[in-house]
Amino acid sequence: MNFDAMLSQKTQETEEIILSFLPKEEGNQKTVLEAMNYSVKVGGKRLRPLLMAETYRMFGGDGEIIKSFMAALEMIHTYSLVHDDLEAMDNDEYRRGMKTTHVVYGEAMAILAGDALLNYAFEIAASAFERNPGDVRAERAMMVLARKAGIFGMVGGQVCDVEAEKRQLPLSKDQLLFIHENKTAALIQSALMIGAILAGAEQTYINALEKIGYNIGIAFQIQDDILDITGSEQELGKPVGSDVKNNKETYVTLAGLEASARQVEALSKEAVQLLGQLPGEHAFLDELILSLIHRTK
Amino acid sequence: MNFDAMLSQKTQETEEIILSFLPKEEGNQKTVLEAMNYSVKVGGKRLRPLLMAETYRMFGGDGEIIKSFMAALEMIHTYSLVHDDLEAMDNDEYRRGMKTTHVVYGEAMAILAGDALLNYAFEIAASAFERNPGDVRAERAMMVLARKAGIFGMVGGQVCDVEAEKRQLPLSKDQLLFIHENKTAALIQSALMIGAILAGAEQTYINALEKIGYNIGIAFQIQDDILDITGSEQELGKPVGSDVKNNKETYVTLAGLEASARQVEALSKEAVQLLGQLPGEHAFLDELILSLIHRTK
Repeated sequence: MNFDAMLSQKTQETEEIILSFLPKEEGNQKTVLEAMNYSVKVGGKRLRPLLMAETYRMFGGDGEIIKSFMAALEMIHTYSLVHDDLEAMDNDEYRRGMKTTHVVYGEAMAILAGDALLNYAFEIAASAFERNPGDVRAERAMMVLARKAGIFGMVGGQVCDVEAEKRQLPLSKDQLLFIHENKTAALIQSALMIGAILAGAEQTYINALEKIGYNIGIAFQIQDDILDITGSEQELGKPVGSDVKNNKETYVTLAGLEASARQVEALSKEAVQLLGQLPGEHAFLDELILSLIHRTK
Repeated sequence: MNFDAMLSQKTQETEEIILSFLPKEEGNQKTVLEAMNYSVKVGGKRLRPLLMAETYRMFGGDGEIIKSFMAALEMIHTYSLVHDDLEAMDNDEYRRGMKTTHVVYGEAMAILAGDALLNYAFEIAASAFERNPGDVRAERAMMVLARKAGIFGMVGGQVCDVEAEKRQLPLSKDQLLFIHENKTAALIQSALMIGAILAGAEQTYINALEKIGYNIGIAFQIQDDILDITGSEQELGKPVGSDVKNNKETYVTLAGLEASARQVEALSKEAVQLLGQLPGEHAFLDELILSLIHRTK
């Protein structure tokens, strides 16, 4: 099977795992359950849970426990998009070709759906304890999930991004990298780290994966900024040119398109090279990382 | 020492524990860290962590682990208030005599500070695993925390409350009790349950505490609704009469002031009576619960 076919199959499997954890849309909270599920079902590449599952397999993991963490991570990613899109934040009306959650359900319900998704992520992750009491790996996975998603991870990056946009101050490359490291790379790092932790990998490998996740995350964000200029609205499912319109500084405005594209390639290739120093089968992971260099959506 | 002096001392101890878990206001995320800490420092009765600590002692707990869960629960309570107060939600400008978080820091930062507090709560709770790996009690406490705070707990109640207010439909007493059970009682239940779980209490006692927490929570909410009519703005630190102004249905509008006051008393006394069937010393807890019947703030 070629890479594209494998990617499509693995994405489908990941999708099914995520959907299997969605709560039923019933009872008094029906509206918010619908809003939560709508946000998750809008879809996307499912890159984070896919990376997690692949790293888990790479280190010999073959249990069910990975599934709850895959779903939890995707729900955290989803809540962050729901809150990002709010009127009080970026006020975005479309994502992946669909109306954003606050447009469909209103601002109050979108805030609550985001809160509910974040909380539900930890509820799903904690459900692993019920099936495997005393499992120190699951405990460590939970710690990494909470740290990378929080104020010293994703939320921290998001805050700096919002502030930078509001103040319209020039950003240094270091400040920009701080934002990308946290806002974008942190969850990707957690995907790789949690996959390895749950499979019982040793600490030196977890540390290496944190570095690899940093590279993938920064490359991913720079490619996003490139696509905001060169991409097609139809493929992306959202308006392009929003960074220029909002006078937003990005890696591309700082370094130019060409140097940015070279940086995406360099970071991705280094990630693959570092991955090559780790044990385990990772041919698909290599191809997945390299495929992100030339992604068009 | 009389009850008031003991309550004051225990509240002070609880306050110090909570403050000790606040993150340092430094680094690139300084603004949101300030907003988080501002929201927590605005204060309040610290009722939930206090109830947790007392239940923990009641069942013989004497470790440090309770502290991280006390702080985590108060942060979840605080985030829920920060998001409740948002312009897109209740649009409240004052709480406990202080300006609300979105008034001081803006709507976007208040959304993010709330997200950060919710996430940080789970980060703090998960830190218990670092010090006590494989501790099944801490795992169970984490599960209860996530469930009671989430879509089948507090957030679920909040959603129904928002919807009821928006639609201005008449509520049945059952619907109102569903809202109170989740929006208000769920976190109080989690306080009692987590205290007992971390102390190693057996399951039948945990179940009894869930019922006791239900009573305390419903009584607490009805008393809140009573105070919105009979209370003083100065003591409460926020405008009174907001329920009437917003045409909001409460237990008081359904049952009348007098029957509501009787209900608060009956629920509280039943809670104390149920507590009396459990082992352990709970004289202070009894007094604390009964003191809530006549609270004026």
